[in-house]
Amino acid sequence: MTCFDSKILASLMTSILKEKDVDQESTHHVVASLIQTSLRGVDSHGTNLFPHYCRELDAGRINKHPQFKIKQSAPSTAVMDADHGFGYHAGAVAMDKAVEFAKNTGVGAISVKNSSHFGAAAYFGLRAAEKDCLGLAFTNADALVKAYGGKEAFFGTNPICFTAPMAGEGPFCLDMSTSVVSWNKVQNFRRDNQSMPLGWAFDESGGSTTDPKKAKTLNPVGEYKGFGLGAMIDILCALLADGPLSKDILPMYAEPLSTKRRINHFLMAIDISKFTEIRHFKQRLKEMARRIRSLAPLDPNSQVKMAGDPEKEIYKIRLAQGIPLSEAKLKEFLSLSSRFKEAIK
Amino acid sequence: MTCFDSKILASLMTSILKEKDVDQESTHHVVASLIQTSLRGVDSHGTNLFPHYCRELDAGRINKHPQFKIKQSAPSTAVMDADHGFGYHAGAVAMDKAVEFAKNTGVGAISVKNSSHFGAAAYFGLRAAEKDCLGLAFTNADALVKAYGGKEAFFGTNPICFTAPMAGEGPFCLDMSTSVVSWNKVQNFRRDNQSMPLGWAFDESGGSTTDPKKAKTLNPVGEYKGFGLGAMIDILCALLADGPLSKDILPMYAEPLSTKRRINHFLMAIDISKFTEIRHFKQRLKEMARRIRSLAPLDPNSQVKMAGDPEKEIYKIRLAQGIPLSEAKLKEFLSLSSRFKEAIK
Repeated sequence: MTCFDSKILASLMTSILKEKDVDQESTHHVVASLIQTSLRGVDSHGTNLFPHYCRELDAGRINKHPQFKIKQSAPSTAVMDADHGFGYHAGAVAMDKAVEFAKNTGVGAISVKNSSHFGAAAYFGLRAAEKDCLGLAFTNADALVKAYGGKEAFFGTNPICFTAPMAGEGPFCLDMSTSVVSWNKVQNFRRDNQSMPLGWAFDESGGSTTDPKKAKTLNPVGEYKGFGLGAMIDILCALLADGPLSKDILPMYAEPLSTKRRINHFLMAIDISKFTEIRHFKQRLKEMARRIRSLAPLDPNSQVKMAGDPEKEIYKIRLAQGIPLSEAKLKEFLSLSSRFKEAIK
Repeated sequence: MTCFDSKILASLMTSILKEKDVDQESTHHVVASLIQTSLRGVDSHGTNLFPHYCRELDAGRINKHPQFKIKQSAPSTAVMDADHGFGYHAGAVAMDKAVEFAKNTGVGAISVKNSSHFGAAAYFGLRAAEKDCLGLAFTNADALVKAYGGKEAFFGTNPICFTAPMAGEGPFCLDMSTSVVSWNKVQNFRRDNQSMPLGWAFDESGGSTTDPKKAKTLNPVGEYKGFGLGAMIDILCALLADGPLSKDILPMYAEPLSTKRRINHFLMAIDISKFTEIRHFKQRLKEMARRIRSLAPLDPNSQVKMAGDPEKEIYKIRLAQGIPLSEAKLKEFLSLSSRFKEAIK
């Protein structure tokens, strides 16, 4: 396993996007999110995606100079057309707008249409938490999660992200897909020729399978509950934005890479200070974390963790040791530019 | 199994609460929610709870004449003190306020403290959907769900309810606890001396058990994901309201019944018309439902269902056939008043 230094990798990705004529703000958010996400250990949504985004840029799927249209419809709400730019950029602008509204009215909610993959929802949630807001970020995605009681997929892995600022450390951050595992995890088992645990995925007929090569759809988390959460997120994202449902969205890796995906997001910020004193809130959340972390663990060599704790631990390690990448991924980076050799630690 | 006619049962419960000097509005919401919930087939949160509420009233836990204090903190937000009244009443007033704010600003969010059990969250979500809003309702509850990686419970079954109005039929309604099953389901298996499926509950040492008599805690839905959702809901409910965490809330059936439980809720409404045309939204949701319901089912004798579909089906049946209750529950009702004999169908 090779490791990339995160700072050098960020600077190289920035220069590559600049060479491809991607505007400065889009570049900033794509790079900042990919690096943050990899440092947090979420390799399915981190720098591994960069080579694919370059292919999408070259094919014309992603607008390098999007003109966002934001229409404020009421004091707390706006509808945004992302003009087929990077979802990273659109989501950040939308969350900043939600925070701006929340500071005035207590809550801000922005619906985004005509966007593209926005990476880890945590990037947007963490932005809201930095401004002393609760952050909520949702997106739909191409259909991969089997309809409960059916044979085929209807909703995407439609994630939920919720963040809250905490005293003395980074925010509480829950960022979860509404499937048991991500498609990427199934792909890793396929690559390594391993059989998967039962309950992750289904084959073409809708039956459970442990063979990653036969996997066609993912299991919703908690069966009908995850299927219901997937529906909630398509309602918040696709129906409010009047964009396509998961079922009608082109998969990320599907050809032609020139076709727009028209993904929809929903971003919300809640200003904590409109409910309770912000310092007190952060202290109480810290105290809740302390109590959870000091619960007797099932495994005596482990510790009970809060959502986001594993990511905080990996962050520190990777900041020092670098972002790991597979040999195959290294090849992809080097085929983009031999300059990526500089980033190898 | 005996059945109660829902209309007669409603009128008898109303007269009992009146005799106990419960104010008119509280009475209305308790009865309306219990009947609606039983008709929807959710027996864990329906009329079965009525005798217990009578005991709580007699013991002084629930304030029969609460003076709600609603403090609007910003155009979209308010903090409400429920004065230890019925959560049913407090939740309805809070959701109506959220809808009122949403009609002005696009979103309304109300934090409620010093409340009591509010029954099925769907009652409040459905109220928002009737007004062409998306409804979100959350509550915390006494700790019953095992901390992921730990031995003991930390969060309650902390439910999520999300509703959306649909053309030509009742709203989409997801109302789910963040545990795999409810505590009530475990209790039913205990009563019937049956062993439970693996994965529902844990024993005192935090190990999985199929013996309902040994069950001490519930499994969070999707393991660390459900544990994270439970945390999200305690943050929204307890931390925004500055009330007690799940871990510090007295169980519903724990003595003394005179002690206030200080439960916290969080209610939110989003005005759909601020994002897209309401008729179009409802039509698109109906079309989404149609597509889901016509997916090829796994079981050829079944149909793929949306969240809320099973409840819509049971509603029709029970409206005609009545609300079923066990012999033990019938005895509890008759011990409250022999007039409940009138309600037997």
